[in-house]
Amino acid sequence: MTGSPITGKKLYIQEVSVRDGFQIEPRFIPTEQKIELINALSRTGLAKIEVTSFTSPKAIPNLADAEAVMSQIERVDGVVYAVLVPNVRGCERALACGVDEINLFMSASATHNLANLRMTQEQSLAQFEQVVRHIDGRAAINASLSTAFGCPFDGAVPESVVFDLVQRYLDMGIGAVSLCDTTGVANPAQVERVCAQVRERWPELVLTAHFHDTRAMGLANVLAALRAGIDRFDASLGGLGGCPFAPGASGNVCTEDMVHMLQAMGYDTGVNLDQLIEISRLLPEIVGHDVPGQVAKAGPYSRRYPVPESVRALSGANQ
Amino acid sequence: MTGSPITGKKLYIQEVSVRDGFQIEPRFIPTEQKIELINALSRTGLAKIEVTSFTSPKAIPNLADAEAVMSQIERVDGVVYAVLVPNVRGCERALACGVDEINLFMSASATHNLANLRMTQEQSLAQFEQVVRHIDGRAAINASLSTAFGCPFDGAVPESVVFDLVQRYLDMGIGAVSLCDTTGVANPAQVERVCAQVRERWPELVLTAHFHDTRAMGLANVLAALRAGIDRFDASLGGLGGCPFAPGASGNVCTEDMVHMLQAMGYDTGVNLDQLIEISRLLPEIVGHDVPGQVAKAGPYSRRYPVPESVRALSGANQ
Repeated sequence: MTGSPITGKKLYIQEVSVRDGFQIEPRFIPTEQKIELINALSRTGLAKIEVTSFTSPKAIPNLADAEAVMSQIERVDGVVYAVLVPNVRGCERALACGVDEINLFMSASATHNLANLRMTQEQSLAQFEQVVRHIDGRAAINASLSTAFGCPFDGAVPESVVFDLVQRYLDMGIGAVSLCDTTGVANPAQVERVCAQVRERWPELVLTAHFHDTRAMGLANVLAALRAGIDRFDASLGGLGGCPFAPGASGNVCTEDMVHMLQAMGYDTGVNLDQLIEISRLLPEIVGHDVPGQVAKAGPYSRRYPVPESVRALSGANQ
Repeated sequence: MTGSPITGKKLYIQEVSVRDGFQIEPRFIPTEQKIELINALSRTGLAKIEVTSFTSPKAIPNLADAEAVMSQIERVDGVVYAVLVPNVRGCERALACGVDEINLFMSASATHNLANLRMTQEQSLAQFEQVVRHIDGRAAINASLSTAFGCPFDGAVPESVVFDLVQRYLDMGIGAVSLCDTTGVANPAQVERVCAQVRERWPELVLTAHFHDTRAMGLANVLAALRAGIDRFDASLGGLGGCPFAPGASGNVCTEDMVHMLQAMGYDTGVNLDQLIEISRLLPEIVGHDVPGQVAKAGPYSRRYPVPESVRALSGANQ
């Protein structure tokens, strides 16, 4: 569409499969395979890769090799290498590996925060402050807000709670926030409304949208977030990841499906889609099961099929 | 969102699973099961059900029982019972069963028309005229335009071709058109652009959007069509259906997933979502395989989970 406001608009695609996806895989993914996958992803043009999580190996056995992975990957200029960190101890481990960005996380709903972190939200905020002081400028910081659009235990999350938490992060000196639809309950009207308000109140905030496709609304929510001016999106190769509260349902928004849609619409994602699809097609062997992503199966919209022989004969007869 | 323009806006949900879905099932669905399913769907508040197709039983063996199904279903007031018809002969069979609406179909791309119908587009148009004359007001007529957003053989379909065909239909006296993304290649920017132009040029036209979720853009395209003012959507229970050119990929947009999103956004679909989900959960047994729909697996966004025992203990300790 000539003159369309979206033509060529730059977007930032942030890959979370190796952290958000792998952490719930029942089978340990060998360190070497993780490193190979991250190295391949690094060369596709992604803006950021969430490499691993410096949590307790007991809590997340599949990411017990956080140091090895983070220190041995080949880092590509222009790619931000981020890691998830639950506390000062994890932060210390992450900084020792020279991470670019530390991603802190808590939930917008009280019960999910207790279930996931065994802390009240105020305890989480106090820990955020500790970690921010500890980092002291040695890495960028992002705060991820889980269940920002609803909670599987508490139900609806008041928008004012989200806004208050964003303000608390800013007060601590955190200038980047991810609004996460952890269990795939957000709808596009809600996404557009919440994101537009956050953008309006804090235009300088670096804002990421993180959606799950649990109820098939993943790319519709991306579209709604775009309308609200969001330009940073988390996604997971093959749609890996997901939510223990929705067995059988899809996981995170699939990176290659999202990039495919955005590029078809005329956005500049900076990502080489063909490479991404090629890498995604390795996933079923790596994780040992089928993955939800669709473009890797169907091919991009531009895929052409040979004209059937019967038609070519008919076509000639009809001329 | 108080005062939102979408709150309570009436939409029309049109079910195609028993025709578009069943026609490609490898196994014959017993007539009795089809009738039971349609009867159940009739009571959910759907605006229209595409019951069957009066084509040659050799071409589509699974719909060889078109007469039996169409005559034996219990028709519910307010539901439009439509059937697909390829020619005057099929039209005669359909009218004998007292159908409410006859759906004619051809493709926007030359090669897909030849492959699917063994006719040139001009031959299809001539047949449309014959059928319209033959019906002579005895049933409503809708024209479905396949590959309206792109063709697996010819690639891009010029928008002018779509507009010219819509005009040809109107010239014949056909006042209802479905724009069909037969192989799931449409993107939301394209959908909004094409639908908005058709709506602007022919505001009186009864316009349906028919999307496939082949490349995960199904509900994003629904959202884009809504923005263009579309209020009628085809969808298929469980996401049955699909496209022979995308093995492994999803089929039609899933009815319950679409209704779930639209209701969450505040639209009035007229459909009882709980009933729809209940009926969809019968599908895997009816067709003998898993189906792509996600809300039937994950439950609606409002689904609440019991607070874990560990959290309740912790929550008490933290007060």
